[in-house]
Formats: sequence, structure tokens, C-alpha cells
Amino acid sequence: MKNTAILLVSCPDQKGLNAAIHDFIYRANGNTLHADEHQDAERNLFLMRVEWDLADFTLDMREFAAHFQPVADRFGMQWRVALSSYRPKIAIFVSRYDHCLVDLLYRQRSGELACEIPLIISNHADVQRWADFYGVPLHVIPVTKENKSLAESRQLELLRPHGIDLIVLARYMQVLSSDFIRQYPPHHIINIHHSFLPAFVGGKPHQQAFDRGVKLIGATSHYVTEVLDDGPIIEQDVVRISHRDTTEDLIQKGRDLEKVVLSRALCWHIENRILLYGNKTVIFD
Amino acid sequence: MKNTAILLVSCPDQKGLNAAIHDFIYRANGNTLHADEHQDAERNLFLMRVEWDLADFTLDMREFAAHFQPVADRFGMQWRVALSSYRPKIAIFVSRYDHCLVDLLYRQRSGELACEIPLIISNHADVQRWADFYGVPLHVIPVTKENKSLAESRQLELLRPHGIDLIVLARYMQVLSSDFIRQYPPHHIINIHHSFLPAFVGGKPHQQAFDRGVKLIGATSHYVTEVLDDGPIIEQDVVRISHRDTTEDLIQKGRDLEKVVLSRALCWHIENRILLYGNKTVIFD
Amino acid sequence: MKNTAILLVSCPDQKGLNAAIHDFIYRANGNTLHADEHQDAERNLFLMRVEWDLADFTLDMREFAAHFQPVADRFGMQWRVALSSYRPKIAIFVSRYDHCLVDLLYRQRSGELACEIPLIISNHADVQRWADFYGVPLHVIPVTKENKSLAESRQLELLRPHGIDLIVLARYMQVLSSDFIRQYPPHHIINIHHSFLPAFVGGKPHQQAFDRGVKLIGATSHYVTEVLDDGPIIEQDVVRISHRDTTEDLIQKGRDLEKVVLSRALCWHIENRILLYGNKTVIFD
Amino acid sequence: MKNTAILLVSCPDQKGLNAAIHDFIYRANGNTLHADEHQDAERNLFLMRVEWDLADFTLDMREFAAHFQPVADRFGMQWRVALSSYRPKIAIFVSRYDHCLVDLLYRQRSGELACEIPLIISNHADVQRWADFYGVPLHVIPVTKENKSLAESRQLELLRPHGIDLIVLARYMQVLSSDFIRQYPPHHIINIHHSFLPAFVGGKPHQQAFDRGVKLIGATSHYVTEVLDDGPIIEQDVVRISHRDTTEDLIQKGRDLEKVVLSRALCWHIENRILLYGNKTVIFD
Repeated sequence: MKNTAILLVSCPDQKGLNAAIHDFIYRANGNTLHADEHQDAERNLFLMRVEWDLADFTLDMREFAAHFQPVADRFGMQWRVALSSYRPKIAIFVSRYDHCLVDLLYRQRSGELACEIPLIISNHADVQRWADFYGVPLHVIPVTKENKSLAESRQLELLRPHGIDLIVLARYMQVLSSDFIRQYPPHHIINIHHSFLPAFVGGKPHQQAFDRGVKLIGATSHYVTEVLDDGPIIEQDVVRISHRDTTEDLIQKGRDLEKVVLSRALCWHIENRILLYGNKTVIFD
Repeated sequence: MKNTAILLVSCPDQKGLNAAIHDFIYRANGNTLHADEHQDAERNLFLMRVEWDLADFTLDMREFAAHFQPVADRFGMQWRVALSSYRPKIAIFVSRYDHCLVDLLYRQRSGELACEIPLIISNHADVQRWADFYGVPLHVIPVTKENKSLAESRQLELLRPHGIDLIVLARYMQVLSSDFIRQYPPHHIINIHHSFLPAFVGGKPHQQAFDRGVKLIGATSHYVTEVLDDGPIIEQDVVRISHRDTTEDLIQKGRDLEKVVLSRALCWHIENRILLYGNKTVIFD
Repeated sequence: MKNTAILLVSCPDQKGLNAAIHDFIYRANGNTLHADEHQDAERNLFLMRVEWDLADFTLDMREFAAHFQPVADRFGMQWRVALSSYRPKIAIFVSRYDHCLVDLLYRQRSGELACEIPLIISNHADVQRWADFYGVPLHVIPVTKENKSLAESRQLELLRPHGIDLIVLARYMQVLSSDFIRQYPPHHIINIHHSFLPAFVGGKPHQQAFDRGVKLIGATSHYVTEVLDDGPIIEQDVVRISHRDTTEDLIQKGRDLEKVVLSRALCWHIENRILLYGNKTVIFD
Repeated sequence: MKNTAILLVSCPDQKGLNAAIHDFIYRANGNTLHADEHQDAERNLFLMRVEWDLADFTLDMREFAAHFQPVADRFGMQWRVALSSYRPKIAIFVSRYDHCLVDLLYRQRSGELACEIPLIISNHADVQRWADFYGVPLHVIPVTKENKSLAESRQLELLRPHGIDLIVLARYMQVLSSDFIRQYPPHHIINIHHSFLPAFVGGKPHQQAFDRGVKLIGATSHYVTEVLDDGPIIEQDVVRISHRDTTEDLIQKGRDLEKVVLSRALCWHIENRILLYGNKTVIFD
């Protein structure tokens, strides 16, 4: 397993930023594996991801913040550091369509997604056999208009003891309330929307796409904010359709898109490749 | 050069439609080259394109309608027939961005687009040297808020003597008035919009896309209706972008998309591969 | 479930073919749902797929051949007819990489692939838990250089009682002998090869691709013939790679390609959308 | 216009490389705009591109080598530095197919390709009017089996006075001799091959692709080496084809691919985004 540290930085652009960061890593005997730095000239913004080997690194990572903060302060950096050895704890929310859930469980088990999945929450019992097969506890909490607030409280209770780092809405067909969303720091919930956003916001995007007569259908994975389908986009992709495709064909093509787009987004999140600024993401792929 | 006839048919689905049409062609000794028939089960609609060789065809095509109409009446068909030997007369409207114009002129001259281009109309004189190079008359008609109605009258006057079959808006940056649009039968004007419709309707779609943080930018070619950017979509495509792309890069990638998408749409129109129903198209590619 | 018949025809092109076929269907009161006919002018070849509803069809399909053969004889047709209600019996061969197997089992169970899977054969026991989960018998037959002939005999014995229509090599890492291949009619074995054929024939195609420095990696699904990786191609696709991709990343991207390409090919085979001529396929998609 | 410097470095990986390079730039008051560093773990190789603003840079770029060489020596770097203000001098070789030539001339004139094109060399006179339109001298040198050596001598004479940095073979249908190729430093000649290399090496790749029945056709831009179609690949792309495509359609689709693939490769070369190692390229896009 990789034993590396990843530093993500954004701040107003200025001279000496690269030199300062690389010098800091080098002084503690770190060997840089990848560094990607980008200047957004229009916003005068410096954006960077750097990953280094911890093998010979002389700094105790628990004390990284204390040592790095002075450098950060000098340049006014927003920053965070992560360890590749840490496996984030992810809760999956799902309803009846199970293709994304099944895909994520397989990828996690096969080592493609370096995370833990301590629990699955669903408003239906349909995915029980998958939960059993993979040995992940499933909690079924039916959601209706009437009990929504109560159901969400129950969900939050279930999540709490696990120290969940990220919630993945894997075709979870309920809209989360603002109250729920505000319980988590920004950008701790990822959704997969089955259209090319911002086209076809809201419900039944395949029907909307069919009615408008588009020639490509899409899928979009994004962070969830309080405004529906409006959060920062992480990844999207499209596939060509034609009049020969029935509604059933569209749904099938959509499923293959959704699986790939969501798993890519999740993988980038886990590998600390996503830097947020404004309502947008930079992907250091 | 191909010497073929193309028949496009739509009507309520019913038994015997294929048999009747193919029987009609065969009785006049026509050799079918391509036939593509599709039943839209959800709308109970029969949609068909058939193309046959006229080499041994015994029916005078000038009398086709008279002979075919009884068959059409029996099934309640909407239909039209076209000859591959006919080169439609196309007027190109353009403003300052000349990449689509230049691309279309080259494709027409190299034989890729089997059409005539009797004139170019622009609100700027910038494309003069291209018009001269290709020997196509250019008419420069400046358009302002004040003179718009007058300018459009002048445009219509210029088009009239040429028997124009199709107007192509090749990045023409003026919105045509409803009065202008109504002068032509539906679906006689094709536009290229530099986004993936229906996302980013209206002006500055690249800026809208940039602001929303999409990961793919698109281009859409569609027939023009009185509602802006809402007509039947003919073709669209997308290209991946990243934070490494500057605004200049987006525009450049967009140009390559626009050229390809518009020329495909135009090619299908010329080859009578587009069947319209409702606000949608079927492309018999 | 659809209750339709599909007719696939190839023969030298000549007048009256469409009329004769559609007339035949119409006389027995069949309602055509889709018809796609294509003339390969360079080879003077007529190629057709037509699908019709059996709801009101007056001809007993068991007697279809007897009635249609005279039509076929008149034009020298090669033809076959199939029923959408028939679920072909498919045996899956697999080795250690289980992603394609797992994908196919899920698609079959969710209704995407209208087939039966009576058995799985593997040279390793690794996929046992998947066979158990889906309730499909797994037969483990180790293959070595020494026992290959014997192992293949055992495989053929296992297949025989099931009336297998198609063998799918879902990343089966053994090369089938010509003796084995000749036991089945041509084109009854589908393979997935993890490169864009005909580049990188044979073993370790990812390594070959890496060494050559290609910018796209591919996957190809094809019918198996006695010449390695040379059979008729059914489907292929590619994905972009960069220097940022490790060997592990290439393998992961390859897996996603292989799943999609193999499942598309298999779907088209099951739905009788593939017409073979020479060493090539026509896909009536 | 951008006034930047670009440094490309490759060397055995070791600690302190990033720190040393960024420190060097910072000490001369350079503001880094983009930096992309990659470690090829399998080869223990450090690969880097860094671009900085020269606005406040205190080092005279004519003396860069003298100052930087000690840093380079310390780490055993292979390196080169380039100025974005320098417009490389490019000679285009072409035969009868003019689509790539026309595309490149347009892109150069519109500012998309920051280079000079002092001359065009062709073995045919067909492209004369394009040369005239763009005001670029055309030299027509017919090439036959008999005069090939003489013709190449004449070509080299024509190139010499212009200080040509790069030769672009824009569908030039003659194979350059090893003698010719050796006149230039490695990687000073770019070719566009109309297939997905390494499939379909050599002549008539479209026919080879058609015969093999592939479902995608490709185009590849690569540096020319003495082994035909074997040099380092810069860029490739593919497009889907079907049985509905005639040979003419394949050629047309191929043309659109070739234009885009060649112009991308050329753009990356001009912007110093290509780092060569072994027989491969890294593209810092």
C-alpha cells in the first residue's frame, strides 16, 4: 500500500509559493511523487496538489499542521493535508435502483476504492441480499412526506457512531432536507444525477431528455448543497442515443454512465484529487 | 454522381406499410439501396426513409406524387420525396467568427456537401476575402437595434431571386425576428449553438458553462423556431475540458466542435436523412 | 415480454427483395416493428434485419421455414429466423479476473440480458462465491499444458447436456484448441480481448500498449476462430490514458471498457442484431 | 502575447528536485504559472514541465543555461528551456490531399498556432491556390523512384536558409529516406498517419481497417523515425463507423480526425508541452 501524504492548497497567486512548499517538503526529506500546480489567471488564484512519499519523511505527520501553518500564513493559504493510508468511512444511501450500490461494493471489495463502508441506508429493503453478500449492515428507514424529518433524525443517529467522512447518494430517490445537509461540513455528500447538469435539473431527467430530443444523454456526479442539483460538479459524461433506443434502452445506457461517473468521482474524492473553490472543482487527475 | 430518389414517410403505425411502399417501388422497377424503418411504439408512429436507384426506374419522377398519393392516402401518410441529383440552394449568414463559414465553403468545394451556395449575408465585412476566394457573392448588411426590421427586409429581398432552400446561421450573432422566421416554411433555417442545449440557452454559453463548472462543453445544431434555441435538435457533441483550459482554450475547442456538428447536421439535411416529428428529429444516418 | 420474430437475410442484391420479404410478412398479418436494409454496393450484397410482432401473425412459426424457403430460393438468400421469446443458453468461461463474469451475471439477473446461464466453467476456484450467490453451477477444471486436451474433453462433456447456444470467454486466459473450436458451428464463441484489435494481438496487450506509448487503450469483443484474435469483430471501444496513469490505472480503465464492450456484444448477439459476412459483422443496432 | 519561459526536465528521480528548480526560479523573481511534475515509479524517472512569467524575471534568458547548468549537473538532468515569445519556423510537406494543409494554414493565420510557416513543399502543384491565398511560397518538387535522392537534396536545400525548426508531413504521401531524416535532430519531423497505430502500419490503412472490419477508425500523429510509422506517438483519436458508412464516408470521417489530431500535436509541440523519453512522449496538457 502507498504510504504518502497529499497537500492541497489554494490562495491568491504570488511569487515563491512553489519554492516555499517544495522547500518545506525537501527539508523534511520527503520525496515528491506528483506535483500539479495551476494558476487561474482570471481569478489570480494559485491551486496545487502535491503528493510525497513518507518513507524517509522526518516530520511526524501529527505535527505537520504546527510546522506548516507558518508557511501557510505567510501566503494566506487555504490548505489541507491527507494521508493515503487513511481509508475514509463512507455511508451509502440507496433506494430501489441498485446498480450504483452493487458497482461501488464490488469496486471497494476488489481494492479499486480505498475506503471503508460501515453501513448502507435505504428507504426500501430490496438491497438486503447485496448487503448480506458483502457483509455490510443495512438499515431500512422508510421515508414518507409525513415522517421525513423523523426519518432523517434516525439516519443521522445511525451515522454518528461511525465517524462518517462522506455520504454517497447512489441513486437515493429522496431529496435531503437542508437541516440534514447542514449537519455535515460542506462537500461531505456526493450525489449522482442521471442527466448532464445543468440541463434537466430535478425529477425524471430521462423523460425530460427524451421530450427535448437530445442526441446525447448524460450523468453528473456533484457535491450536494442546499440548492437541488446545483452543487459543485465533480465529473460528468455522456453517451450517444438515437431514435432506435427505447425508453428501456435509455435507462440501460444511463445505468452504465451513472456507475462509471459516480465511481470516478468517488475515487477522486478518496484520493484527495478534488480541490473546491467557489462553486467549482479542480480535479488533479 | 448518385442518381437516386429518397422517400421519407411518417404516419400512424399499421400493418402493410412496408409491403405497400416496397411494392410500389418494385412495380416501377426500382432497386432499393437503403431502407430504414422504425416504429415508435410509445406514440404508435411509423417512421421510414427509403432510397432507391433511378437507373431502371420506369416512373417519371415528375409524376411520382400523382402515382404515390393514393398509397399515401390509404395509410394517412405524411411524406416527401427528394432526388439525390438535386443540389439544394443554401444561403449562409455569418458575423465575425468565420470558422464555420470557412469550413462549410471548403466542404462544399471539395464535394463533401452536395449543395449550391449562391450567396453569403453578413452584418460585417470581415469575411470578404473568403467570399472572394470561393467566388461567392457577399452582401454586407449592418444590423442595429434601430434598423433591424429594415435590414431583415433587405436580407429577404436578397434571398428571394435565388430560390433558397435553406438558410444556415454559421455563428450569425443576431437573433432573427419572428417575422423573418415566418417567411420560410418550418425547418428551413439551421443554427449552430455553442453549448449543449438545453443547457446554457441564450448568449455567452461558454461563460455560463465556465461559471457552472461543467466538465464537458458542447455544441448543438438545430432548426430555428420562433422560441430562441428551442427548435428540433439535429446533432450535438461534447468535448472534455479541465481547469488547465483557459477561456481561450475553451473557445478553440468549441470552434472544432461547432464546425463538425454544424457540417454533420447540414450534410444530413442535404442528404434528406432528417425526419421531423413533433419538436424532434429522427436521423436516418 | 416482447413476442416478436426476427429475420436476418444476406444475398446478392437484386430488385424486389424488400417487396418480397415485406409482402411475405404482411400476407401472414405480421406488423413490422423495425426493418433495416442495407446494400453493400462494393460487394453487390443485400443485408437485412426485420422484426415483426407475432401477436396477429397467422403463420405457425414452426412452419416458417417451409413457407419462406421458396422466397429464399428465388433470390438465393442466406437467412435465419429467431424468436425474441427464446432465451439462448450461454456458458461462461472465466479464469481469475472476475469483473466480466460478475457484470454479466448482474445484467442477466436484472433482465438486461435475455438469456439463460446454465453453467460457469473455470480453471480456478476463485469465482465460487459468485456462482453460489447467483445459484449457477460452477465447474472447476484446472488446465495445464499436459492435461489441456483432457480438460477440453471434460469441458465439452459438461456443455453437451445443456444444449449450449453460445460460449462466452469472459477473460478466460486459456487459448482454446482448434479441436474444441471445431465442435461448435462457426460464431458460437465470443471472446473479450483487452486491446483495440488488430493492434496488440496475443498476450499482455496492456504491456504492449504501454511499451508502444499509445494515447488510447481499447477492448474488442469478437467471435472466436481458429486463428488467435482474428475472428469477426463485434464491438470495440477505447478510453484515453496519460502518463499520469499507473499500470494499475490502465488495468482499472481496461476493466470498465471490457465490461461494457463484452456486454454490448453479448446483448446484440442475444437480440439477433449481428449478421456475419466474410470475416466481418454488420450490427443492426 | 504571453511572455513566459518553459523548462522541460527529465532525470533519475531523487529528493530535492522540485525544491531546487522552484528555488532557482524564485531567486530570479519568476512567477510560476503552471508546474506539472510526474514521477514514473517503474522507471524511477522524474519528468517535469514548468512555465513562469518573465515580467519580473531578473535573469537574462540568454544567460539562463550558464546559470542553470550547475543545478542540472547536480541532478544529472536532461533539460531544455524555451520562450513562449519564440515562433518556431515550420515547413509543411503535402501531396494531393489538402485538408490538413488548409486546416493548419487557417489555424496559424487565426492565431491558434503560434508559429511561422516560411514555405510549403509538395510533389504536386494542386495546392498552389492555397499557397497564394495565404501568401506562403510553394515549391513543387515531383518525386519518382528514380529521382527521389535528388528530390530530397533539393528539398533540403530549400529548407536550409529558413532555419526550419520542424517539418510537418500533412498527408505527404512519400516515405522520407533515412538520409533525409538523419539531417535533422531527432523529433524534428511530425507525421499524421490515417489509422490508429500500431494497427494498420504502412499504406492504405483505411482499406486495411475496412477489410479487418473494425468498428472504430483512427488517426495518429507521431514523430518520424527511420522505422516507418514507429516513432513516438504524440496524439491519437478514433471515430465510430458502421456498415452504413461507404468508403467515401470513411475517408470523410478520417479527414476530420486527421485535422484535429495533427493540429493538437502541432500545438503541443509549439507550446513545448511534449517531453520525449525512450520511444514515448509525455504530454503536459
